Amino acid sequence: MIPGDGIGQEVVAQGLKVLGAVLPQDVKLETREFDFGARRYHATGETLTDADVEALKQHDAILLGAIGDPTVPSGVLERGFLLKLRFLFDHYVNLRPSRLLPGVSTPLAGQPEIDFIVVREGTEGPYTGNGGSIRTGTPHEVATEVSVNTAYGVERVVRDAFARAQARPRKKLTLVHKNNVLAYAGHLWTNIFNAVAKEFPDVTTDYLHVDAATIFLVTDPARFDVIVTDNLFGDIITDLAAAVSGGIGVAASGNINPSGEFPSMFEPVHGSAPDIAGQGKADPSATILSVALLLRHLGHEAEAARIESAVSADLASRGDSVRTTDEIGDAIAAQVAG
Amino acid sequence: MIPGDGIGQEVVAQGLKVLGAVLPQDVKLETREFDFGARRYHATGETLTDADVEALKQHDAILLGAIGDPTVPSGVLERGFLLKLRFLFDHYVNLRPSRLLPGVSTPLAGQPEIDFIVVREGTEGPYTGNGGSIRTGTPHEVATEVSVNTAYGVERVVRDAFARAQARPRKKLTLVHKNNVLAYAGHLWTNIFNAVAKEFPDVTTDYLHVDAATIFLVTDPARFDVIVTDNLFGDIITDLAAAVSGGIGVAASGNINPSGEFPSMFEPVHGSAPDIAGQGKADPSATILSVALLLRHLGHEAEAARIESAVSADLASRGDSVRTTDEIGDAIAAQVAG
Ligand SMILES: CC(C)[C@H](C(=O)O)[C@@H](O)C(=O)O
Ligand SMILES: CC(C)[C@H](C(=O)O)[C@@H](O)C(=O)O
Repeated sequence: MIPGDGIGQEVVAQGLKVLGAVLPQDVKLETREFDFGARRYHATGETLTDADVEALKQHDAILLGAIGDPTVPSGVLERGFLLKLRFLFDHYVNLRPSRLLPGVSTPLAGQPEIDFIVVREGTEGPYTGNGGSIRTGTPHEVATEVSVNTAYGVERVVRDAFARAQARPRKKLTLVHKNNVLAYAGHLWTNIFNAVAKEFPDVTTDYLHVDAATIFLVTDPARFDVIVTDNLFGDIITDLAAAVSGGIGVAASGNINPSGEFPSMFEPVHGSAPDIAGQGKADPSATILSVALLLRHLGHEAEAARIESAVSADLASRGDSVRTTDEIGDAIAAQVAG
Repeated sequence: MIPGDGIGQEVVAQGLKVLGAVLPQDVKLETREFDFGARRYHATGETLTDADVEALKQHDAILLGAIGDPTVPSGVLERGFLLKLRFLFDHYVNLRPSRLLPGVSTPLAGQPEIDFIVVREGTEGPYTGNGGSIRTGTPHEVATEVSVNTAYGVERVVRDAFARAQARPRKKLTLVHKNNVLAYAGHLWTNIFNAVAKEFPDVTTDYLHVDAATIFLVTDPARFDVIVTDNLFGDIITDLAAAVSGGIGVAASGNINPSGEFPSMFEPVHGSAPDIAGQGKADPSATILSVALLLRHLGHEAEAARIESAVSADLASRGDSVRTTDEIGDAIAAQVAG
């Protein structure tokens, strides 16, 4: 458990509560809490030490709340902890489902059908930290960012996305990139996508530029089944996808290492929301749905499905009632246990 | 006039019609039509020659329809013509207004107020074509894309955006970037933004990560007045902005060289839409609104405003009636002339 900063503390507590309630008697749950985030950083200057990494490796999975605080310069915790862990634990499948559940409101008119997943590459692209600057701080500064894309890295995530598409009823996979401008990376992604497609003849495929994809996400989200995309485009379109399918209060995600060599990490898409932290106002649904993804990843499909039904029922029955973080957690825990 | 491909032909014809109608008697309009795009490429293999560039330079402004066709490999015309011209003519201000006009439908519920402009940088970032690949086509391929950002390039566009924000009633400017991940470019943008802000004390400023910006564009678009952002983020969020504010059928844009050293170029945000080309189905409004931006750029403010009112009135009175491209152009031309 890495509650982290801000509302991370509150929502992870609810995730743990539901996890405890849903597991059958014969499954033993052992947890350890880590104090990463702003407090640790202010106290020790550390974000993630080698010893921390070794300790985390001993676990089957990680549940993360949120990392980030206004008292820490932008990027320090994000890169020093969150992205570092995604890279060290080779979380190359960043899985982000979007589903507009009954009773949940969307900013889109006409309550459209939304049920797709985004498979975002998690270990390459513009997130590698490659780049630099010269004449920094002068009128002649030049700053670069390098997007690094490898056949190895692209093929494995594309293959994963095809397998996920094949397992869904609609069997449709959309590649999102910007291959008319980012020609080198674009060709690599497009060629590999087309090559892997031959191995999945029953999966329908198409391609959208990332700018066009944002249009369809608001005008025709029902057109999407599975999307595979690069790290940065995935970051952008999954926030938009969360917004249209009920908001980041209900958006779950998994940072998955499919080989199982390293523990996978599950987290809500939302941030630490310091403005509402400690007030019991945060919606723990996204974290609880992330627990479902965690259980599914570890093979507990029935328990994952039970959590998802319970969250769905809870959201559908909410109406205008205002409940605390804790009350929502209690209600869902009671349902999954029942 | 560069009608270009697909519906570009039809919509530019309407733009020219309205331009002819709105200009006062004492303004002499001289036009020349260029045949860039897929036909020229197929006939000669050329996208834009040195002689073309010299010929274009002789003009005060360029009106572009759309460039791109499925018969030409993705990227060839985009990079060989459109982006080449933006770079050669130093179109560093890519201006994209978003306004939800009365009577125009939006995919968002509740018909929110939308009236903001995006100042997208047009000559740097990931659009420079820097990058490459090694072991191309093998399982060991590595492909890179380099985002190049200079203090010179960022400062001039940020300054332009501050001036535009200062000239608007709300005087609010939002920087959109991803400075927690793209740290080198992010620092450059953030530092210059904060430095220039000191020269515009009456402009309110804030900052949003690009992923968060996409959320606000659908949940609270009224929060935006002026946005300044990098080339790629600008590409993505302006398509989304167009979608929420009435669709790309009405989204205009200007590729502006503020110094006047080179002609600026005005174009609808939409593409060549080959699926509906030649059928009189395209909405010329975006092109006609681009003509208004062109006139404003050349100092014909009254005529620009007249076109904008006419398009607005035309959209408001449309209802469910289906008119051809030509009919819409005729109606607007009649109004601006009146
Ligand atoms: C906090 C940030 C580094 C992170 C990202 O950009 O990946 C977040 O936006 C996300 O989507 O998980
Ligand atoms: C066609 C393409 C190169 C272009 C861009 O990416 O700038 C277009 O999407 C735009 O926004 O004008």
